[in-house]
Amino acid sequence: MKLITLIIITVYLSISAAAQQNEPDSVVLKKVFDEALTDHSAWENLRYLTCTIGPRICGSPQAAAAVEWSKQVLQELNPDTVWLQGLKVKNWKRGDKEYGAITSSKFGFRQVNIAALGLSSPTPENGIVAEVVEVHDFDELAKLGKEKVAGKIVFFNRAMDPVNYYTFASYGGAVNQRVSGASEAAKYDAAGVIVRSVASSEDEFPHTGSMHYAKEDKLKLPVAAICTRDADLLGKWLKDDPHLVFYYKMTCRTLPDADSYNVIGEIRGSEHPDEMITIGGHLDSWDIAPGAHDDGAGVVQSIEIIRLLKKLNIKPKHTIRVVLFMDEEMAQRGAAKYSEEALRKHEKHLAAIESDRGGFAPTGFSVDAAKEQLDKIKSWKNNFEKYGIHEFYAGGSGVDIGPLKDQHVPLIALVTESQRYFDYHHSANDTFDKVNMRELQLGSAAMAFLVLMIDKYGL
Amino acid sequence: MKLITLIIITVYLSISAAAQQNEPDSVVLKKVFDEALTDHSAWENLRYLTCTIGPRICGSPQAAAAVEWSKQVLQELNPDTVWLQGLKVKNWKRGDKEYGAITSSKFGFRQVNIAALGLSSPTPENGIVAEVVEVHDFDELAKLGKEKVAGKIVFFNRAMDPVNYYTFASYGGAVNQRVSGASEAAKYDAAGVIVRSVASSEDEFPHTGSMHYAKEDKLKLPVAAICTRDADLLGKWLKDDPHLVFYYKMTCRTLPDADSYNVIGEIRGSEHPDEMITIGGHLDSWDIAPGAHDDGAGVVQSIEIIRLLKKLNIKPKHTIRVVLFMDEEMAQRGAAKYSEEALRKHEKHLAAIESDRGGFAPTGFSVDAAKEQLDKIKSWKNNFEKYGIHEFYAGGSGVDIGPLKDQHVPLIALVTESQRYFDYHHSANDTFDKVNMRELQLGSAAMAFLVLMIDKYGL
Repeated sequence: MKLITLIIITVYLSISAAAQQNEPDSVVLKKVFDEALTDHSAWENLRYLTCTIGPRICGSPQAAAAVEWSKQVLQELNPDTVWLQGLKVKNWKRGDKEYGAITSSKFGFRQVNIAALGLSSPTPENGIVAEVVEVHDFDELAKLGKEKVAGKIVFFNRAMDPVNYYTFASYGGAVNQRVSGASEAAKYDAAGVIVRSVASSEDEFPHTGSMHYAKEDKLKLPVAAICTRDADLLGKWLKDDPHLVFYYKMTCRTLPDADSYNVIGEIRGSEHPDEMITIGGHLDSWDIAPGAHDDGAGVVQSIEIIRLLKKLNIKPKHTIRVVLFMDEEMAQRGAAKYSEEALRKHEKHLAAIESDRGGFAPTGFSVDAAKEQLDKIKSWKNNFEKYGIHEFYAGGSGVDIGPLKDQHVPLIALVTESQRYFDYHHSANDTFDKVNMRELQLGSAAMAFLVLMIDKYGL
Repeated sequence: MKLITLIIITVYLSISAAAQQNEPDSVVLKKVFDEALTDHSAWENLRYLTCTIGPRICGSPQAAAAVEWSKQVLQELNPDTVWLQGLKVKNWKRGDKEYGAITSSKFGFRQVNIAALGLSSPTPENGIVAEVVEVHDFDELAKLGKEKVAGKIVFFNRAMDPVNYYTFASYGGAVNQRVSGASEAAKYDAAGVIVRSVASSEDEFPHTGSMHYAKEDKLKLPVAAICTRDADLLGKWLKDDPHLVFYYKMTCRTLPDADSYNVIGEIRGSEHPDEMITIGGHLDSWDIAPGAHDDGAGVVQSIEIIRLLKKLNIKPKHTIRVVLFMDEEMAQRGAAKYSEEALRKHEKHLAAIESDRGGFAPTGFSVDAAKEQLDKIKSWKNNFEKYGIHEFYAGGSGVDIGPLKDQHVPLIALVTESQRYFDYHHSANDTFDKVNMRELQLGSAAMAFLVLMIDKYGL
């Protein structure tokens, strides 16, 4: 290449980059949303991740496939770097499909749909058979005490409160049964634990999720989620036949930790390569769930940020990093690893953004940062509102970026319309067809535009 | 009853009604939303209307069933009056399922999914066979002129523009092909017309809809919608084989007008019984569509307003009237009839509210009224925002309440999150399972609260 040609190209590129920085925000907004709403890559990526790879609990062959696939997808977009961040993950296996049944001298027999909670112990080989005591919270359980609980299966049957507009609030109000129900029941020498699925729908899908045993637990009671339809049935039968018998059998087990990875891709900043804006979602899903909303959506939306910047030829001033976290569902090891490495390398994060509330229409951002930082984001509201994104409030972010809080990173969650999320969450019903392409695309675009505003104006 | 008892009861009821009028708006808001989000009546009504009755084009036995069913449902709620408003409706029958196919010397043969547009003429008994000319708008058609169009099937293949946030804008930008395509093609002696489904999804469902022939049309060309998947295929094949042949056959016909009804229920106002607030949706759906979003949702939400007022023992000052309109899809005869009768009886409408944008999460209200009236509604925004209802803008209302504009009635449409609507609209895919219970409930509650604010503060 002749020197003069090189100079012309260099000058042109500089002018082009400068022009881009000076483009009105509203022009950038339209470019980003037009491209996101027109292109089907994120949608097709989600189809592959959920339909071809499918459920991908950490430690499984499918989780390994998700790592390899997402690495390749990122590489094809040709950012500056793509790498794997190694870590050890929990390795819990469900074993055979669980079996649960009610036998009542009054109503007869009914097989019910149950699923072991993640990290639960198995039942003995021949299962557990016992009478059932229904409770709705830990206080009610404590009042019954050992006398009425010992030797019985504790059935936690508190439904999500339907009156909250934000379904995450109702989830928060019901999930302690799932997380700590086994520990609480162990205090009173229960024989086993069944928990109503923490779900907003009335249907036949058990919704699994994480649980943990406390160190002081004398018993590690096997615990399963029962679908809401069968929880209602069991509750109803118990009213007229308190001596009915419940049977369940589970063969789940926890193996030694397995090797896995966070998948990371980044476009290096033109002016501040050492300062980064991280965007992420999590690769793993529950083993019974294709994880389309939780969190296939967050994965493909995060990847889409890279595609948008490359396609629109936008050169960010700061490094834009996409992190696809592993093991969000079980023990959040990917989150811990990423944060540890950031600390070890003294990485400076301008902000971290997480998409883990489903691929629904985005309504805003929840910001866990200083008031001035929230106010700055709010000052961009007029542009966001053109696409229905109108809520900017102080609140929690997400599990995967959470540990970065200790490093004083401003944390931001993409907020989506939440009415449908807990119909699908952690169940076999969280499938590709439950995601709407346009709603997914709007979420990618919302995050991309936020990234570009932070890149331009700082935070 | 002793006089003293009667006096006590009367005084009590007056105090109770006064207390209710004086309840802070935020208390009324919570009561209405709590009840709507807790009760499943509207949801079960929608199940019955869409799954048991099913598609219900005006003039059909199913439309008569929908009239009888909704009358009974309203009567069971025990408002002050329920009546049927008789009218004559269009009576178009689809006949046999349509057949469409492409034959290409290059690509072979493919059967495609088509559906006659409402009010279309049939093809001749043996169908129509012709080469295809693809156009994207009427200008392109005009440029081709008779020379290239005569004797051919005109294929309108303009997709909905994906970049608009409000999908109704994209619908508006594509629907003239469907409504007037046959008339335009007739100008150039075309043999027939195929129109790309006005839909946001890429799938196998043809989306029908209304069309009309102009008085001056020499030919009444038979016109069908083709599903987007097959429209893409046809477009692709035409590029490499412009001489491929399209065949289609339709046996639809228009019979003499049929008898039908608007179904009306009302709670009479305690102070101003002659002034009313009307809320409505339309009972009819296309014959191929169970019409869950269009407009089963609007029907059950409107009925739900009556249930909420009765259940919460709210006595409105003005008459609250629910109108379930007939024949919205074909010729809007129910809308015309209601408006004529209102004029004839000198009825005073404080406002009319329509729900016909699907049972999705409500985002706001579009108001076709004076600026002061919009401003008044906006002044209630703080309460609405607690449930995600944040958009209050000047805009169109709906087809069924539209004719009341001549009587200077403030018209209001419930606005919903619009990304999914045109995936389902006017197709066999508009089924019950596409509606989320909570989103539906939020829409009812939003309208109920708006009704109560107008009842309390006027408009």
